[in-house]
Amino acid sequence: MNEMHAVVKMEPGTGAEYTTRPIPEVRDDEVLIKVLSTSICGSDLHLYNWDEWSEQRVQVPRIMGHEMAGEVVEVGKAVRSFKVGDYVSAETHIYCGYCYACRHGRTEVCMNLQIIGFDRDGAFAEYVSLPERVIWKNDPGIPREWASIQEPLGNAVDTVLAENPAGKTVLVTGCGPVGLLAIGVARATGATTIFATDINEYRLELALKMGANFILNPKKVNVVEYVLDATHGAGVELLLEMSGSVSALRDGLRLVTPGGAVSLLGLFPNREVSLDLNNDVILKGIRVHGITGRKIFSTWFKTSRLLASGKLDLDPVITHRFPMAEFEKGLQLMREGLCGKILLLPPSAA
Amino acid sequence: MNEMHAVVKMEPGTGAEYTTRPIPEVRDDEVLIKVLSTSICGSDLHLYNWDEWSEQRVQVPRIMGHEMAGEVVEVGKAVRSFKVGDYVSAETHIYCGYCYACRHGRTEVCMNLQIIGFDRDGAFAEYVSLPERVIWKNDPGIPREWASIQEPLGNAVDTVLAENPAGKTVLVTGCGPVGLLAIGVARATGATTIFATDINEYRLELALKMGANFILNPKKVNVVEYVLDATHGAGVELLLEMSGSVSALRDGLRLVTPGGAVSLLGLFPNREVSLDLNNDVILKGIRVHGITGRKIFSTWFKTSRLLASGKLDLDPVITHRFPMAEFEKGLQLMREGLCGKILLLPPSAA
Amino acid sequence: MNEMHAVVKMEPGTGAEYTTRPIPEVRDDEVLIKVLSTSICGSDLHLYNWDEWSEQRVQVPRIMGHEMAGEVVEVGKAVRSFKVGDYVSAETHIYCGYCYACRHGRTEVCMNLQIIGFDRDGAFAEYVSLPERVIWKNDPGIPREWASIQEPLGNAVDTVLAENPAGKTVLVTGCGPVGLLAIGVARATGATTIFATDINEYRLELALKMGANFILNPKKVNVVEYVLDATHGAGVELLLEMSGSVSALRDGLRLVTPGGAVSLLGLFPNREVSLDLNNDVILKGIRVHGITGRKIFSTWFKTSRLLASGKLDLDPVITHRFPMAEFEKGLQLMREGLCGKILLLPPSAA
Amino acid sequence: MNEMHAVVKMEPGTGAEYTTRPIPEVRDDEVLIKVLSTSICGSDLHLYNWDEWSEQRVQVPRIMGHEMAGEVVEVGKAVRSFKVGDYVSAETHIYCGYCYACRHGRTEVCMNLQIIGFDRDGAFAEYVSLPERVIWKNDPGIPREWASIQEPLGNAVDTVLAENPAGKTVLVTGCGPVGLLAIGVARATGATTIFATDINEYRLELALKMGANFILNPKKVNVVEYVLDATHGAGVELLLEMSGSVSALRDGLRLVTPGGAVSLLGLFPNREVSLDLNNDVILKGIRVHGITGRKIFSTWFKTSRLLASGKLDLDPVITHRFPMAEFEKGLQLMREGLCGKILLLPPSAA
Repeated sequence: MNEMHAVVKMEPGTGAEYTTRPIPEVRDDEVLIKVLSTSICGSDLHLYNWDEWSEQRVQVPRIMGHEMAGEVVEVGKAVRSFKVGDYVSAETHIYCGYCYACRHGRTEVCMNLQIIGFDRDGAFAEYVSLPERVIWKNDPGIPREWASIQEPLGNAVDTVLAENPAGKTVLVTGCGPVGLLAIGVARATGATTIFATDINEYRLELALKMGANFILNPKKVNVVEYVLDATHGAGVELLLEMSGSVSALRDGLRLVTPGGAVSLLGLFPNREVSLDLNNDVILKGIRVHGITGRKIFSTWFKTSRLLASGKLDLDPVITHRFPMAEFEKGLQLMREGLCGKILLLPPSAA
Repeated sequence: MNEMHAVVKMEPGTGAEYTTRPIPEVRDDEVLIKVLSTSICGSDLHLYNWDEWSEQRVQVPRIMGHEMAGEVVEVGKAVRSFKVGDYVSAETHIYCGYCYACRHGRTEVCMNLQIIGFDRDGAFAEYVSLPERVIWKNDPGIPREWASIQEPLGNAVDTVLAENPAGKTVLVTGCGPVGLLAIGVARATGATTIFATDINEYRLELALKMGANFILNPKKVNVVEYVLDATHGAGVELLLEMSGSVSALRDGLRLVTPGGAVSLLGLFPNREVSLDLNNDVILKGIRVHGITGRKIFSTWFKTSRLLASGKLDLDPVITHRFPMAEFEKGLQLMREGLCGKILLLPPSAA
Repeated sequence: MNEMHAVVKMEPGTGAEYTTRPIPEVRDDEVLIKVLSTSICGSDLHLYNWDEWSEQRVQVPRIMGHEMAGEVVEVGKAVRSFKVGDYVSAETHIYCGYCYACRHGRTEVCMNLQIIGFDRDGAFAEYVSLPERVIWKNDPGIPREWASIQEPLGNAVDTVLAENPAGKTVLVTGCGPVGLLAIGVARATGATTIFATDINEYRLELALKMGANFILNPKKVNVVEYVLDATHGAGVELLLEMSGSVSALRDGLRLVTPGGAVSLLGLFPNREVSLDLNNDVILKGIRVHGITGRKIFSTWFKTSRLLASGKLDLDPVITHRFPMAEFEKGLQLMREGLCGKILLLPPSAA
Repeated sequence: MNEMHAVVKMEPGTGAEYTTRPIPEVRDDEVLIKVLSTSICGSDLHLYNWDEWSEQRVQVPRIMGHEMAGEVVEVGKAVRSFKVGDYVSAETHIYCGYCYACRHGRTEVCMNLQIIGFDRDGAFAEYVSLPERVIWKNDPGIPREWASIQEPLGNAVDTVLAENPAGKTVLVTGCGPVGLLAIGVARATGATTIFATDINEYRLELALKMGANFILNPKKVNVVEYVLDATHGAGVELLLEMSGSVSALRDGLRLVTPGGAVSLLGLFPNREVSLDLNNDVILKGIRVHGITGRKIFSTWFKTSRLLASGKLDLDPVITHRFPMAEFEKGLQLMREGLCGKILLLPPSAA
């Protein structure tokens, strides 16, 4: 009766289970949320696979998941801004508010970050309890399936808007879910030509649907030559690196026009990435922005509005829906790359 | 045989004539352009009316006009970047390149500015000769009627992009031609809600066509109340003042949300504008950008691409076309406000 | 035994009293601070005088004062970042954290701002209890007399650093305490020429000590002519308006070079300020920044370091020290303008 | 009689000669300058050594040198802004004005850059003729020895001011001449703590004189540990990489605080530089600025004023002076690193 279903990382090593857990208790500064929709992030797959980072950081058992939309069903007694019935999502990065970064207003790179679904129980469950300071009240016009994707969409928004893309030529390297979202955001915010690259044809097709003007598979075409030719030698003004592929980054940097800019979001599988800094960064006088998380909450306002206004259509990105119990089907599709964003629906919504 | 037709301000006082003038000679650093299309700017009307500013600044006779698209038919011997046959437009502000502002890269506010059609002969003619440094090579995909409007569109682009409008709520006060263009640009570059105000219903209808979400006539509705209500008290994040109306500015400033921003483009009929700086600017911590001209040429790249990419449709703004000989019909419509942008076509194109 | 001395606004109308009040109780999220030094702000004088704003906003009795340095003597049970013995100051603006402005990271313009010494009891007392989220841990190298001035110094820092003053010519209009601090900050952060204006010769002398290169009394010299002459017609790149004088602002705006910028901090005695927006803002393409409060806490880091590093000497600005009981002597000096910053010392420090 | 002395790269391979050359002719858009002082740049040594880049780019014979101050002795007939007798220096980067980068206002990364002393004859000579558009009129208060160093000082200014250093903790990796200048600039523009690193003790001593607070030799101290300890774990807010050393860059990136920034000026001896982008750039959300050349001429205004105002003293950086004929002594000292900036004086000034 006080139990709920959840996807739980039960022990070290590969795997996770759909099982039952107690409904979380609500602390004074928290709200309890009935989960209506969730979506899978690449990091969830890393946790499932128990990669090195997970092994060092995560304590089991741990309820997985952080991309979510739901409804507030209970509020702690110190909560001031939310009430039962509110339609909400949550910022994944629970910041401390008092470290050096937080007090500089950079809560997204808080030095004591607690990550939902990794450092505390997450949202692949019927209920999740979270601190008020990371709760976001959803625009009622945004469908719950889109609402749960606001969090990764925020990554895309910050990647695209690190510099103003309006009237610019943009190269997006990597068409995984966040890359696809970035294409949509770039298109909605004024990018006038968008080149998109990936080695996965399935995802290149989705890139077209999201608004890419040119889709390029580096296994089939010389991306550097193609883009230089198409831009009459000027190259691109913005590179959005969403792939975590070193060769994509290197090609991309080569293509950035003098005075242009780069946003780096994709994480690279190896610690060491080798670059021609002289020619590709310094002598071209470009700017490089490391992007992680989302600005809390200025990014969320933009993200929410792009969805509520109809300027951005997420449907092409949402390729699959599974009941939460079948989460492993989703993870398998992600491994194969034959998907955009995959939704996991709790029993009440499935 | 060496003569051409042109609209000429012949003498001080109201008026101008469609008459003949010698085809201009081409200096070493100039290109001679055969005019294919022109459009009327509000400032042309001021010159026709011989307002105080014109009286102090303009020497007659003077060929009027500066918004233009044409084809290069002759190049001076020092010209390096253009050749006969090039399809071009021109930046109106002929900057000196050596004053304090120019050497700070702010050529659009050059302290020795020479303005085409005011300080030297302009483009309401069959031919115009202009210095290479203000010539812009048009994208071949842009129709000549749109190409001549790139110059005022550049004003709109700089007004909108003084801050990034993506995901923001925007108020555009004033729906004259440049205000209408600003609405289109704001919509193309990610503004998610656009309120537009004007006292002219004809122009409010055009505002809708350009992408405004709400059109408000301050003679009929309390704009401040309406916008506050529609934004749940938050107000707007960007105010784009395009009207030159003091009451529009005052209402607009009241509506800017704390931390928001303002772009001022419209010039006010009187020198003195009275504002509540304490409450409307200082205590809200907002930023105000004075906008004049266009960045030469970084704005033109954006402007050109917004047109060539199809992200911005100028057709709703172009409401009338006249042969150059009938320029006074266009001026009359502008006086009445019953128009968007008006084209004047030279004999060869009319 | 549970009582303390304090300067209290006891009732509506002019005046305040040095009297006794209970030592404040400490809520869960608060720290109790033993006050070691305080300083008087112009707004304290407004409250004493019971101006219109005070009348509408302040409920009496109210302990006055907000510029402060002290030592933590007790912490509420939810406090995480401070402990007994910490040497602290406080941000005056108690932000809500959840309004539209706060969630955009603009806590200094919070829409539900609670101001210390106006909306809740302040710091002209032996003890003050304040919420953890506005407490700042002082650098131990900063003397307590300087520490209490960090708050208004933060105003000056934000005014100066709204744009980077390095290598620029700056005009500071108004040499009251915050204007004097702004001169010091501008000098410490790279302004290469500083013009300072005031009609008060006493304060102009202090301006020289803080690093102004030229001091100008508009009653004796034509400021516009003088500065244009000294800058070979270029004018100034930054105007820092700290006077709240309309004529100072108008002269200042006239002097801003095309492409330059303005920071507005001084509040104007009348709501209406009349400006030549066309010539002084729009056609020059300048930027105007409304400045209020301080960025919480990114400004405090800079402020603290400028003091701790020895780059900024506050001693010339501190012209008087009084025991708290003699606060009216300080207010009288402020009325007369014969002072820089005035310290009020609690009984333990006096 | 029409001959002058000059340092000339006569043929491929190591070496150069002090010999005679014809005094250059003055084209219409050029001014002829009598050289009063020059200084040696690291790139001059590369040319002397005939490195790979020189071999591919430079045609011999070529008069070397580009850092210079002199006096105008003749002007071409199209020159508008300079006259005989003007005291001038020159921007090294002769931009085309019409390429994609130039028309974006980024003349310093012009795609058709002509570099003085490499692509055309330079300033290690009694006379040099240069196009008006790269001539800078010197402030008469700047001594000629300092004036010739404005060009590399401009590199330092852009490196430091890519972000505002005011109130920040800064790490300068590399104390060669431009690194030393960067330390001076950072100190003059408000950096509150400056760490400087180099493996050359001679240069570390100069770093102290220029205003570094801490000098660290990575051969003797663990720089990462030292700086983290001194900053209580926060690290530095700005990294200025002036060394071209991969290990210095890697240590520096590790030390940048979350949300901080990096300017890269030093060129790396090898094309490939291996970085931990995930942890050192992306997950910290930092910005990286590639810096090359100087903004033409907005940087020069700042540079000139920092010198003329006395905020920056170049004397500690100027360690040696040689007659131009003894240029090889200077090059030898540079090879050994036992110098700051080295002046070469023409016969008239030696």
